[in-house]
Amino acid sequence: MPNLLALDAGGTSTRAVLLTPSGQCLGYGTAGGGNPVSRGLSPALQALSAASRQALGGRVEPLGQVLVAMAGASVEMPLELLHDSFAAFGLSGKVLIESDLLATFYSGTFHDSGHALIAGTGAVGARVAQGRLFSVADGMGWLLGDAGSGFWLGREVAQAVGAALDGRGPATALTAPLLAELGIAAEGQADHIQGRLRAQQQLITKVYERSAIELSRFAPLVFAASGDRVAQGIIDRAGAALAQTLLATAASSPKGDMDAVTAIMSGPLIFGGSVLTKGVSVAAAVTGRLRARDGTVARPVLVADGAVGAAVMALKRSGIDVDAKVFARIQHSLALLR
Amino acid sequence: MPNLLALDAGGTSTRAVLLTPSGQCLGYGTAGGGNPVSRGLSPALQALSAASRQALGGRVEPLGQVLVAMAGASVEMPLELLHDSFAAFGLSGKVLIESDLLATFYSGTFHDSGHALIAGTGAVGARVAQGRLFSVADGMGWLLGDAGSGFWLGREVAQAVGAALDGRGPATALTAPLLAELGIAAEGQADHIQGRLRAQQQLITKVYERSAIELSRFAPLVFAASGDRVAQGIIDRAGAALAQTLLATAASSPKGDMDAVTAIMSGPLIFGGSVLTKGVSVAAAVTGRLRARDGTVARPVLVADGAVGAAVMALKRSGIDVDAKVFARIQHSLALLR
Repeated sequence: MPNLLALDAGGTSTRAVLLTPSGQCLGYGTAGGGNPVSRGLSPALQALSAASRQALGGRVEPLGQVLVAMAGASVEMPLELLHDSFAAFGLSGKVLIESDLLATFYSGTFHDSGHALIAGTGAVGARVAQGRLFSVADGMGWLLGDAGSGFWLGREVAQAVGAALDGRGPATALTAPLLAELGIAAEGQADHIQGRLRAQQQLITKVYERSAIELSRFAPLVFAASGDRVAQGIIDRAGAALAQTLLATAASSPKGDMDAVTAIMSGPLIFGGSVLTKGVSVAAAVTGRLRARDGTVARPVLVADGAVGAAVMALKRSGIDVDAKVFARIQHSLALLR
Repeated sequence: MPNLLALDAGGTSTRAVLLTPSGQCLGYGTAGGGNPVSRGLSPALQALSAASRQALGGRVEPLGQVLVAMAGASVEMPLELLHDSFAAFGLSGKVLIESDLLATFYSGTFHDSGHALIAGTGAVGARVAQGRLFSVADGMGWLLGDAGSGFWLGREVAQAVGAALDGRGPATALTAPLLAELGIAAEGQADHIQGRLRAQQQLITKVYERSAIELSRFAPLVFAASGDRVAQGIIDRAGAALAQTLLATAASSPKGDMDAVTAIMSGPLIFGGSVLTKGVSVAAAVTGRLRARDGTVARPVLVADGAVGAAVMALKRSGIDVDAKVFARIQHSLALLR
């Protein structure tokens, strides 16, 4: 049986894994953003090819299947184009497109049912059943939702500093690092212009010079301002919003949050995205709200990306059973290649 | 003494008033947006000229002074260009640029101290002292603040409907009118695609097809959904945020909200902007939070725009005293021209 290629195509980076039908990873490659929605079709195709070429290490060999995990891209990425693109690498079988949410889920488990919560630049929760997305909550993007995401945290930081500067909110230790990050000089910040602190006017000017989504780069400030009441409040609200997102995916027939918690704790729970995997305080704020009747707290599996999960799905969608042993083989052999 | 010209240059429309030094309004004109920041310099200049030409009714007469009220425009609008532009209308005196906040304030009072709260597409509060802006709160724009504004209300509507559709929030009567407003057909809304209701996926797609600021057009839905708990919650939060903005302008030395309420109620309080002057429920949610120790509630003066205030400032900045009689003359003679 020929080898398989699995790709995890994100908005800012793409990962490709070459693996045997037994789950032994043979090659690994990375490239830039591979999502046609956020990157455009041609750059996305180029990224998928570049990562694949690296994973194949120059070989052209018969590939049984290529599986590509990407966000909401099945419409935007024509399968024929993908197929032509991979034919150059020796593809004889099919190209499958799968959800990036499923790839993140399967990066933490080989079971076919459970829950995933992802908070990177965006934020989304998913319930997986029988290997498919059963229900999805939030993931509505920076303007309509993504509550608890990196963008959301960064915007909260900028809003809290704005409120502190004009007296709508309490003083906060976030102010000095945010102004410094924006390159606003310390001198003259306390001057008033037309009834406004110069620092606030400059904050407004600097933020609107950039695109809205760039507010996400202020998210790390909230983790650095430990002990600050305002920063802690932002982390608590992020945790509450993300817990709400996760609970909504579990409550398909709404019987209240406690039943949703029980449902979530009865199977694997996967956390992905930098806000949950690097910002430990947000993950703790989420799990603190996922407490069962007997007092036990949910223990999520943290995953860095969807590379393992894409490999898992490449096997499963080829009809190959992935058990604990195969899953461990994928994990370990891939870790050695990274 | 020659006549004066007063302009209230907003982001979407401009008003011009020709008046005598005694406050008798002789002509009135309107045009499109006259703010160089949001419209660009050349279109803004054209709008100012068009409104002025209309107010002058074809006359070219010696003008003692032109006063232009506009938002944060003193830097972007070169005075020489303005002067050249008005010289064609017979201007012999100076061109003055003043804050649009002051124009709104003076549309409701001839006193030189008090407070103003404006909630249109944006939201801002101001304390006026000795005829100048003493402190300003919020007005940070759609991305960083403007809490309680038309944009903020519209975004809350879209977010609440999104949360209702995926179970993060309660069902709401806002859902049907929002989906209809977006042109989302009723059939198939309950279908699931990749774990999501089709209605939610379409909501996301439709909103991101437009610019962010266009969310403000959903604000009226919140007023129409009377009796809905979610809509009432949005109105309450808007009122709380706007009250906070107003209170922040009053608490220059922070002694708590009650002292700020006392300070606000000791002078004129002006409400401007469509959210406060047309959406009566938001104004009531604000004033409900401005209750003095003796139980009396603030009674704001509602003003439609800054036209009267620009005329008041044109007189004051020429050294003319504006008392109750002159103020009433401006109000009444302008009302007859509109």
